[in-house]
Amino acid sequence: MSATTTISLDAMGGDHAPLIIVKGAALARVRYPTARFVLFGDEAKIAPLVKAEKGLESVTTIRHTTEVITGDTKPSQALRSGRQTSMWKAIEAVKAGEADGVVSAGNTGALMAMAKLIMRPLKGVDRPAIVSLVPTKVGESALLDLGANTQCDARNLVEFAIMGECFVRALLGLERPSVGLLNIGSEDLKGTDVLREASQVLRTAHLDMEFKGFVEGDDITKGTVDVVVTDGFTGNIALKTAEGTAKLYSEFLRNAIKSSILAKIGMLFAMPVLKQVMARTDPRRYNGALFLGLNGVVVKSHGSTDAVGFANAIGVAIDMVARDLNSHIGEEMNRIAAEQAAGGLAPGVAEDKVG
Amino acid sequence: MSATTTISLDAMGGDHAPLIIVKGAALARVRYPTARFVLFGDEAKIAPLVKAEKGLESVTTIRHTTEVITGDTKPSQALRSGRQTSMWKAIEAVKAGEADGVVSAGNTGALMAMAKLIMRPLKGVDRPAIVSLVPTKVGESALLDLGANTQCDARNLVEFAIMGECFVRALLGLERPSVGLLNIGSEDLKGTDVLREASQVLRTAHLDMEFKGFVEGDDITKGTVDVVVTDGFTGNIALKTAEGTAKLYSEFLRNAIKSSILAKIGMLFAMPVLKQVMARTDPRRYNGALFLGLNGVVVKSHGSTDAVGFANAIGVAIDMVARDLNSHIGEEMNRIAAEQAAGGLAPGVAEDKVG
Repeated sequence: MSATTTISLDAMGGDHAPLIIVKGAALARVRYPTARFVLFGDEAKIAPLVKAEKGLESVTTIRHTTEVITGDTKPSQALRSGRQTSMWKAIEAVKAGEADGVVSAGNTGALMAMAKLIMRPLKGVDRPAIVSLVPTKVGESALLDLGANTQCDARNLVEFAIMGECFVRALLGLERPSVGLLNIGSEDLKGTDVLREASQVLRTAHLDMEFKGFVEGDDITKGTVDVVVTDGFTGNIALKTAEGTAKLYSEFLRNAIKSSILAKIGMLFAMPVLKQVMARTDPRRYNGALFLGLNGVVVKSHGSTDAVGFANAIGVAIDMVARDLNSHIGEEMNRIAAEQAAGGLAPGVAEDKVG
Repeated sequence: MSATTTISLDAMGGDHAPLIIVKGAALARVRYPTARFVLFGDEAKIAPLVKAEKGLESVTTIRHTTEVITGDTKPSQALRSGRQTSMWKAIEAVKAGEADGVVSAGNTGALMAMAKLIMRPLKGVDRPAIVSLVPTKVGESALLDLGANTQCDARNLVEFAIMGECFVRALLGLERPSVGLLNIGSEDLKGTDVLREASQVLRTAHLDMEFKGFVEGDDITKGTVDVVVTDGFTGNIALKTAEGTAKLYSEFLRNAIKSSILAKIGMLFAMPVLKQVMARTDPRRYNGALFLGLNGVVVKSHGSTDAVGFANAIGVAIDMVARDLNSHIGEEMNRIAAEQAAGGLAPGVAEDKVG
């Protein structure tokens, strides 16, 4: 890795692009002094914004693009006719070696489809997945898949477990992260056939993994396991439900405080600890979902985030480049493939079943 | 309906039975002076607890039972050999006309299996579902199914939508409740085939329903629609994730306040509004999930709730008896069946598809 890390940014993706993309880069530059940026998008719009941020211009290259992926562009459409878009060009910059990783706040489906096509999945990976950290009582856990794969078979879930474990080991530095499968009960008989099959494989295949069996929805925030594995439909619903609930709670609190003079006085005293709570549950802190299992670092930011949130997404990309996550996943997949070849793994990981 | 409402209670179900069952009944008696209770369980344990609660003995009958459904009893096992259990007898009391509704904090799967067998589903209902109210920014919404049906086809989801609409109309008094299908995006093309098919039927069949299409996980707490419809797997995960997140938030807050003297002083001022926030998001307030689509009122309490929560579950049962929800659902199902027979409905509702 070079002394600097270069991140390419889809400057036209997201609800408030290109403004918060540029402002996010400016914030990230302060936090990561060795970071460089390549911004893809409408130069006439981006250049003045970059100039307005102190110190950003000298670490930034702008590449003019004319087309944009919108929120309702279908993945197939994006692949067919998206090659001149800021999103495509930003991903291509990583493939071409011009950047070490890419961040976009645009259309998730299009981003995944393009990233798969341009970067290709890592050897041994059937389905790349989307992962993010979520806050728990005891720290942070990884939750995946968050929406890349709506329907999954047992093999996919096993793959997510392996990749999620590598992610947590690299990002949080845990030696032996624990892994659980999200289900509607912890008993072995609960849930779907796919879940029972995946559990069986994770238990019996010699994956050398701290597999804890099934966990439930409330185990996510309890921090029962370090990696919570589920299909992309369920994971997406769980993540958004958790975000919505956190928002509801903080809004109730804010409105209640506003409604009472006594409470306002009390808040003057309590402000430092409240700020601490807000910071710990701030969704912007957890902005930046990583695409796992690709030959390259791709991070998806929330479309509606602000500059602080986008800077955090850039931070995830920089961290993942620094920790060389893809090599770790690649090595793990090779190790498992070798054991499979030697007959050391139970059937299920190797077979390509359709769920 | 009689001037009094009689609720039968599975006194042996739940983590803290029979103590909190009896204490919950005592609290409910104060709130609902016309309520009567029939408690099923170990008389030697229950009788002294009932005696200890002021005013409870005179409105309570105890029926001795010797067997108990445990948390790991499988539904099939419960049906085969559970006829002497407190749960079975409590449900049977409703069927026999001795009680108007039943509440249990025991094993959900066993309770649903027994309730279906003893009470039978309402005419026209293929799959009874579990529904609960959840707090939203603008009030409360209903979420179903919460776990009765792990895998659902389009027809099931349409049925849940109809029953959920009746539930909200009866409980919250809304004239024309809005209904949404839980999905991972609001665009028509998102999600699974089952969801797209259900959406199509809800849009085109003349159900006279305010169907708003797809909603996402964060729409639950936003209160985007009054009824959020999903399969039992997803609904269970969403509900438990939301509960876990609310708990995380309040624990962060409590710990932060404890850690700071200034915050403690501030809290003296802010306590009234904080209590208000706590009350509004208190999971005990939302305890009591209703089984929809049966010939009788069956309410499931959280297994780990306390007396306040269990009293709320009893309150749900009493409310549902008073509002005669089952008749409303029965009428709606008849109306739809009649329209189907007359050719007024698009195909899909009538057909029995396997998803």
